[in-house]
Amino acid sequence: MKLSERILSMEHSPIEKYYVYANRAKHAGRKVYHLNIGQPDIKTPPQFMKAIKAFENDVLAYAPSEGSFDLIDSVRRYYKRFDVELSRHNVIITHGGSEALTFAFQTILDPGDEVITPEPYYTNYAVFVGMTGARLVPIETTAEEGYRYADRKRIERLITPKTKALLICNPGNPTGTVLARSEMRMICDLAKEHDFFIIADEVYREFAYDEDKAISFGEFDDVSDRVIITDSVSKRFSACGARIGTMVTRNDDIYENTMKLAQARLCCPTLDQIGARTLYDLPEDFFDEIKEEYKNRRDAAYKALSSIKGIVCKKPKGAFYITCKLPVEDTDDFLVWMLTEFEDRGETAMFAPVDNFYISSSKGKNEIRIAYILNEKDLLRGIELIEKGLNEYRRRK
Amino acid sequence: MKLSERILSMEHSPIEKYYVYANRAKHAGRKVYHLNIGQPDIKTPPQFMKAIKAFENDVLAYAPSEGSFDLIDSVRRYYKRFDVELSRHNVIITHGGSEALTFAFQTILDPGDEVITPEPYYTNYAVFVGMTGARLVPIETTAEEGYRYADRKRIERLITPKTKALLICNPGNPTGTVLARSEMRMICDLAKEHDFFIIADEVYREFAYDEDKAISFGEFDDVSDRVIITDSVSKRFSACGARIGTMVTRNDDIYENTMKLAQARLCCPTLDQIGARTLYDLPEDFFDEIKEEYKNRRDAAYKALSSIKGIVCKKPKGAFYITCKLPVEDTDDFLVWMLTEFEDRGETAMFAPVDNFYISSSKGKNEIRIAYILNEKDLLRGIELIEKGLNEYRRRK
Repeated sequence: MKLSERILSMEHSPIEKYYVYANRAKHAGRKVYHLNIGQPDIKTPPQFMKAIKAFENDVLAYAPSEGSFDLIDSVRRYYKRFDVELSRHNVIITHGGSEALTFAFQTILDPGDEVITPEPYYTNYAVFVGMTGARLVPIETTAEEGYRYADRKRIERLITPKTKALLICNPGNPTGTVLARSEMRMICDLAKEHDFFIIADEVYREFAYDEDKAISFGEFDDVSDRVIITDSVSKRFSACGARIGTMVTRNDDIYENTMKLAQARLCCPTLDQIGARTLYDLPEDFFDEIKEEYKNRRDAAYKALSSIKGIVCKKPKGAFYITCKLPVEDTDDFLVWMLTEFEDRGETAMFAPVDNFYISSSKGKNEIRIAYILNEKDLLRGIELIEKGLNEYRRRK
Repeated sequence: MKLSERILSMEHSPIEKYYVYANRAKHAGRKVYHLNIGQPDIKTPPQFMKAIKAFENDVLAYAPSEGSFDLIDSVRRYYKRFDVELSRHNVIITHGGSEALTFAFQTILDPGDEVITPEPYYTNYAVFVGMTGARLVPIETTAEEGYRYADRKRIERLITPKTKALLICNPGNPTGTVLARSEMRMICDLAKEHDFFIIADEVYREFAYDEDKAISFGEFDDVSDRVIITDSVSKRFSACGARIGTMVTRNDDIYENTMKLAQARLCCPTLDQIGARTLYDLPEDFFDEIKEEYKNRRDAAYKALSSIKGIVCKKPKGAFYITCKLPVEDTDDFLVWMLTEFEDRGETAMFAPVDNFYISSSKGKNEIRIAYILNEKDLLRGIELIEKGLNEYRRRK
């Protein structure tokens, strides 16, 4: 009774394994500042629950497989802000951004195919791509260069006859990199020249703090048949628990084939779709205040991190993450130590070690990701705890 | 820019393609009786919405990847009714029964593996198994035998070194077959002898109309490491739109590995889990009335169908489907004709042609599935329309 080779070769989510230690620390009375997860503290817009509470049908029935038409139309109106004109047959509502990614990969990838993506990457990409039997090919980056990857030559040398897609998270998790329009243009040109797809994970779209306006890969009309956008209400509207995502494609062939998968799993939750519609209908200025809040946190976190001796940290431009290099050998070990042995006035902090965000197990061992999803006071206290912990950890080792 | 070979080889959901015709019929003013879908008309228990409406948190946050502990504990209490003792590490909450099936297949199947299942089968199995690169191997059945399949020799001769699992929907969709305890015992023995898994799709568990008590494959303790149960609130509690399913396994290795997939897609919807908990907490006698209602419908539908000249129809024992053979060559063609050319007092009916529930495209061409999910009056009118249509269709051809 052997399990699948494929599942055995996959990794567990890197963050989950530290919760055992975090829970023990909490149980022992210590307060843990969670800078490790992408669960924002921003309030979910009340419109969401209000719409759900107004549901009066006697039977909670299936929704259409492609998504409720009301929600699809709201998504279409939202994309018009970016001059991306979508028909009803360009949008499939999914179980979070996760299913949008799974659908995209299942639709285009066969075993042995290759997907190029900048490294470090959102770890779950490895599972979603792994399910198809294809593999990720990393574009190498460095902390010193602020993890920038959009260099034509650097990408071009990774392209092989098996390259099926370039997978881009923009703004990026875990590094916070944001592509300039010229870089996006270059990537579109590469996709045309070398005949591959662009899978654009744009769940952090609005969170680009040094730009006047967010940009979507959907804006490049000459590659509209090559671009698959994966999207979600989770981060944008602070509605992570709704599990409502979107796959956007203007390629009819992809739409028709992905619908086989969407039909097979029947539909997304009916109530959450009713709620999600109200989120996409929020006015554009809804993001102004939130963007300002995150920008201030980014600036404060960056300033605090930069003052840590021996750190390599470039100012990230978007999402709500900062990845940086610490003057330690192994941030896994450092984190376990922080959770088991360290405390300052009964408090400690949790971050995400970044080695699991790399394909090679030897990389990223001295890097961490922090998420600025707490208010500024807690965020700065968390970073202070990391700094204090770091000093003590280095003295002891 | 080729799509995946795998996705191109998959079929679209068979039922969806007829909606174009049904919608045209409705647009032209005709009433269509939907006997084609598994969307029950039974009211969703009001406890579900009540619990969701009481949600007061400011932030709709992620739930745990394995499911909320409250819901998992309710599921465990529910399974105790069948003497199935489950720990918290035996239950994973999923996006409907669909994701439970996907998880089970992804965890045990590699490309080239074989999954034996009685035919006709729930069509979406082909997509979920197809995603892994494995293939379905059908146990052949006949309308004349009431689609019964639990014959040791018939199953045994299909077993090869590549057989990884037997996939059983019990009570069965689309045929309504229900296994006797002795047949389940035989299947468990086979699994031990030939070393394979049993994937038990038990979403219709309580809907076994000639039994005093539902039986679960989870009751057979000697194969507890071989059984993966997939389950859902959809049919049991008439809450199809909640998209809350369950994968149950007492094999630690399977649990640990499936959790890689569960963690990668983060979690199931937070609100629907709050609602679903109340459903599993409903008293056992909640099913008495519903079971009685479906049983009466089954009896009425069976009686009406049996009186149709030339039909082959055995009384099904469970779920809410009847599959039967009609005296026509091609039920696809008959259905399109029913929706485009037939009417009786401005009304027509829709059923599901069963050829898509077979692997071989030449099989099941004269079979249909009807779902008894409408009240008795509408159900009988629907069957009457099929009978009238059939008479006229045969005269014309």
